[in-house]
Amino acid sequence: MFRKRGANFLLTLSATVLVVFFAPTAAGPGIPEIKAYLNGIDTPNMYGASTLFVKIIGSIGAVSAGLDLGKEGPLVHIGSCIASLLGQGGTDKHRVKWRWYRIMNNDRDRRDLITCGASSGVCAAFRSPVGGVLFALEEVATWWRSAILWRTFFSTAVVVVVLRAFIEFCSSGKCGLFGNGGLIMFDVSNVTVHYNMMDILGVALIGLIGGVLGSLYNYALHKVLRLYSLINERGKLAKILLSLTVSIFTSVCLYGLPFLVGCTKCDPSISKFECSTTGRTGNYKRFNCPKGYYNDLASLLFSTNDDAVRNIFSTNTPGEFHSVSLVIYFVLYCILGLFTFGIAVPSGLFLPIILIGSAYGRLLGIAMGSYTKIDRGLYAVLGAASLMAGSMRMTVSLCVIFLELTNNLLLLPVTMLVLLIAKSVGDCFNPSIYEIILELKGLPFLDANPEPWMRNISVAELADVKPPLISLRGLEKVSRIVDILRNTTHNGFPVIDDDVTVPSSEGTKARELHGLILRAHLVAVLKKKWFLNQPRKTEEWEVRQRFSWVELAERDLDFEQVAISKNEMEMYVDLHPFTNKTPYTVVEDMSVAKAMVLFRQVALRHLLIVPKYQGAGIYPVIGILTRQDLRAHNIQTVFPHIAKTKGREKQK
Amino acid sequence: MFRKRGANFLLTLSATVLVVFFAPTAAGPGIPEIKAYLNGIDTPNMYGASTLFVKIIGSIGAVSAGLDLGKEGPLVHIGSCIASLLGQGGTDKHRVKWRWYRIMNNDRDRRDLITCGASSGVCAAFRSPVGGVLFALEEVATWWRSAILWRTFFSTAVVVVVLRAFIEFCSSGKCGLFGNGGLIMFDVSNVTVHYNMMDILGVALIGLIGGVLGSLYNYALHKVLRLYSLINERGKLAKILLSLTVSIFTSVCLYGLPFLVGCTKCDPSISKFECSTTGRTGNYKRFNCPKGYYNDLASLLFSTNDDAVRNIFSTNTPGEFHSVSLVIYFVLYCILGLFTFGIAVPSGLFLPIILIGSAYGRLLGIAMGSYTKIDRGLYAVLGAASLMAGSMRMTVSLCVIFLELTNNLLLLPVTMLVLLIAKSVGDCFNPSIYEIILELKGLPFLDANPEPWMRNISVAELADVKPPLISLRGLEKVSRIVDILRNTTHNGFPVIDDDVTVPSSEGTKARELHGLILRAHLVAVLKKKWFLNQPRKTEEWEVRQRFSWVELAERDLDFEQVAISKNEMEMYVDLHPFTNKTPYTVVEDMSVAKAMVLFRQVALRHLLIVPKYQGAGIYPVIGILTRQDLRAHNIQTVFPHIAKTKGREKQK
Repeated sequence: MFRKRGANFLLTLSATVLVVFFAPTAAGPGIPEIKAYLNGIDTPNMYGASTLFVKIIGSIGAVSAGLDLGKEGPLVHIGSCIASLLGQGGTDKHRVKWRWYRIMNNDRDRRDLITCGASSGVCAAFRSPVGGVLFALEEVATWWRSAILWRTFFSTAVVVVVLRAFIEFCSSGKCGLFGNGGLIMFDVSNVTVHYNMMDILGVALIGLIGGVLGSLYNYALHKVLRLYSLINERGKLAKILLSLTVSIFTSVCLYGLPFLVGCTKCDPSISKFECSTTGRTGNYKRFNCPKGYYNDLASLLFSTNDDAVRNIFSTNTPGEFHSVSLVIYFVLYCILGLFTFGIAVPSGLFLPIILIGSAYGRLLGIAMGSYTKIDRGLYAVLGAASLMAGSMRMTVSLCVIFLELTNNLLLLPVTMLVLLIAKSVGDCFNPSIYEIILELKGLPFLDANPEPWMRNISVAELADVKPPLISLRGLEKVSRIVDILRNTTHNGFPVIDDDVTVPSSEGTKARELHGLILRAHLVAVLKKKWFLNQPRKTEEWEVRQRFSWVELAERDLDFEQVAISKNEMEMYVDLHPFTNKTPYTVVEDMSVAKAMVLFRQVALRHLLIVPKYQGAGIYPVIGILTRQDLRAHNIQTVFPHIAKTKGREKQK
Repeated sequence: MFRKRGANFLLTLSATVLVVFFAPTAAGPGIPEIKAYLNGIDTPNMYGASTLFVKIIGSIGAVSAGLDLGKEGPLVHIGSCIASLLGQGGTDKHRVKWRWYRIMNNDRDRRDLITCGASSGVCAAFRSPVGGVLFALEEVATWWRSAILWRTFFSTAVVVVVLRAFIEFCSSGKCGLFGNGGLIMFDVSNVTVHYNMMDILGVALIGLIGGVLGSLYNYALHKVLRLYSLINERGKLAKILLSLTVSIFTSVCLYGLPFLVGCTKCDPSISKFECSTTGRTGNYKRFNCPKGYYNDLASLLFSTNDDAVRNIFSTNTPGEFHSVSLVIYFVLYCILGLFTFGIAVPSGLFLPIILIGSAYGRLLGIAMGSYTKIDRGLYAVLGAASLMAGSMRMTVSLCVIFLELTNNLLLLPVTMLVLLIAKSVGDCFNPSIYEIILELKGLPFLDANPEPWMRNISVAELADVKPPLISLRGLEKVSRIVDILRNTTHNGFPVIDDDVTVPSSEGTKARELHGLILRAHLVAVLKKKWFLNQPRKTEEWEVRQRFSWVELAERDLDFEQVAISKNEMEMYVDLHPFTNKTPYTVVEDMSVAKAMVLFRQVALRHLLIVPKYQGAGIYPVIGILTRQDLRAHNIQTVFPHIAKTKGREKQK
């Protein structure tokens, strides 16, 4: 037994070392970062080859170390990594330069691919193809097009066909535990579900408790993660020590606690080979008991997490688990779940929550006793579903995932009820767990709906409190560009031409809003040193000759290496060819709420504010809005009087 | 037998008369109109009480008349009608005027309610809650927010709980055929699905044929519907005669064709009570055969459509149906399906397509013979799924609907494969059936993606070919408003003030784009005769005193009744309080494609085009774009040279 614990310790150590030294972004589930990416926030090094490698190896290590974490979140991240690498044709260093790859090399297709990868991950984790599609739709994706729907559907279809082929191949037991349970992981279809109106009350109670527990879990996890971030700031050694402490604590609990409960006599109707075994799987573990007896807590603790779920979900076995064992199990996994999630290994949230939820569900089933006709195994299923909904606040996708996990369609109405109640109750207390993690990580996630108070501020007021606008001329001096790039961190600049002749009315001179230029393009021009002695407009072919399509698509912002001589500083650049001539604009009077709807729906990075007046001497741009300007939190900082009216009136 | 046919005739007559005289909008499935409504196109009298009533009664009549049409589409429409009536608190004439109803009385909430209604309809039709949610998402809705996801989920949850309660109540046979099949309508879960790689080929073949047949069906239905629209234009009598002809033809075929096939001896393993019955339900109908024998075609034709599906789907009955009977059935229902859909009764497309598809699927199963291990009933299921996907081009929702109809989760991988192949093959030939109907009805549906050639036209070019812009001043003469309302049909006008002092730079005079005013508000002002003797700016309280919130929310465009005297014609109106001060704008250089993305994503009705120049003498608005201006078809009419590059390059 101690050898086994030692192995757990080493596995945890190697997973942590891999993560800490080679790919820190591989820690945790990765789902919040994917969600943020699809919202328009790129986390660096998130989808690289090293992350993928560490995530796979680390996740295997962490799960087999017996830690209380799941492989579901990591699988979603792994799917996204593979999708991203396939989409760009290899790693950043070794990349296939095929021509047809370029048509996919844009932000939208990359987002689509990563969405497909995420849904494939869920599909592989739960063997749930439709659930995977819905998970991507409900939880991960920000923008949804009908094309993504069938693309994700296609990728999960491929996953499930491959999975099935492997299961077929492994059915003779060649592959260890793989394929256990077939395509349905936790089958409860052998129970015919009968329930009457009284049972609905019990089910509603599960949902209620699930919602309360779920939001409590979110609250506690938030506190633990904040504590952990303080520890993790101390350096790599602190991270490793933290992981090892958790690992030792887990091992001690798993090995020690079964001694607390007594032995149970095997039900004579069960064959001797099934009851009281010492193998890896099976519902009845002998542990410290004599032959013919089993230790029910050991049956839960000494198996893989998947098998533990299968044991708790097991139906037609009303007396198998005692309430004392289940209470110990529930409390233990609450503690383990909270303290394991934040350590520096790849870890998923799904399975820990399912374990806690199923334990309390089965407990509730025992407590209901003869008042209910529903099997205790089904109570465990519903408990798991309710805690998931209470913590993650998903509905449709969880419903389908549970349907595909348990293969009992007649359970659908009650599952829906439980999920809706748990989600609604949870929403009264705090946001979902992923939103909490997003905020902890400081990712500027753009919410779907503007806060109601945003209607009372205009974009011009918002522009007023920002630093003054910096704009460029179409024919600009090199020195000014260098100056601006050095002294600001903006990513986009409006380009404005003075004294342009308006084609429609000859003779009229006016200012022209030529468009918006990106920092990356300014850097590209400086790097190529495409400077002109005179300020003159260039022809299109001149630009094409110098800049390839690929070069302009690169987003290279590293400007420090460029050395520009004094002579060159006095030269000019024609910015017109690099300018996006049709930026999206809003009129100065528009409310922030309305601008935010535009910003998010059209998926913008920069939004120009134009004046509502038209006349001589009026500057054609008032300001520029970015994602950070439109975040509720940032607006409240500059308009403190608004913060008072905040509350939780946000329209969901 | 002739009495039965007479009853069918009368039922068809009454359904048609109801539809023709009381609610012409109740004809057909109603799904295309709901789809259009959620895209922003309101069909008049679509969700009224009379439509609801006629749809319910008419649908019952049409289905019980034995016509080849389903109740699924009508149920979706019924759900939407109920949702709409609930949302506005009653019919247009008798409406509850509760205060809290007003918070729901806006376009967005009305759209949400109708989406919920549609998903509840699908849920009720197929007893498929998750399928209903996905149908609303994939096929019906244009804009999707995460809030709608759990709202539709909630409504389908309520539907399924109510359904289950009724099924429980009716389980003793009190309610006739209701509740047959329980929550799972066509249960095929008793077959264990085993298939190998060879079977996948057969399955791919089903998908291929389904795609080809589905697009052929769409093509033929398009032709028939065009023919029917010529007939229907002749008046009400023509409509009624058409319905009755179809009814008689159906009756003759249903009664006459079973004589063509011979009798089959009952399988001795089946009990006498099951084989060779004369009742309403059952798999084996005796018809013209002696005792102990059954007529397999009569078994299909003499039962309700639901039972026919159940019979064709029936598993473990390899020899029950002969291929001759199935061929006759297939051809008959192809003809009936095409010619029944367009008649003036409430009719759904789902069931006819399922019937045709299941027949050809089972035929294919028989043809495969010993090459396949998959049951012939499952072939029928897959055939039905493939034809649906080939005609309607849905994937995820169909997959879940079929899963919930048949309760066999192990069939999921093959179903997904079939659906994807059928959809992809169908997409090569023509658009989906709903898109075809939308185009036939002339509804200006706004597609999700702009056509690629739209990138080559700027919005200014589009504005150039439109009639000149009509704009109003903030303080406008009554006579000019009346004049404009009489001579144009525009629904929105820009409001522009001349010679305004710009607050930021004192002394500068400029033109101000004050905003956009709606025709409905101009009519409201004229009706109230809120005229001023002098052109002066009014105060906010003056407006509040005269116009209630509700009056301004009304969309009353009827302007003819307003009598305005000559004196009043010389007076002024202050339009400022009624103007939307922050219309969405685009710069003149923007491509039509980009403008269309904005237009659709933010769900606009009017989009102002502003100049990129800023200077004296430049008019602040260049043009105004509406839904009609952005439709691909309309642009091609005014830019004929573009039409050549069209092709089918549209990015799906």
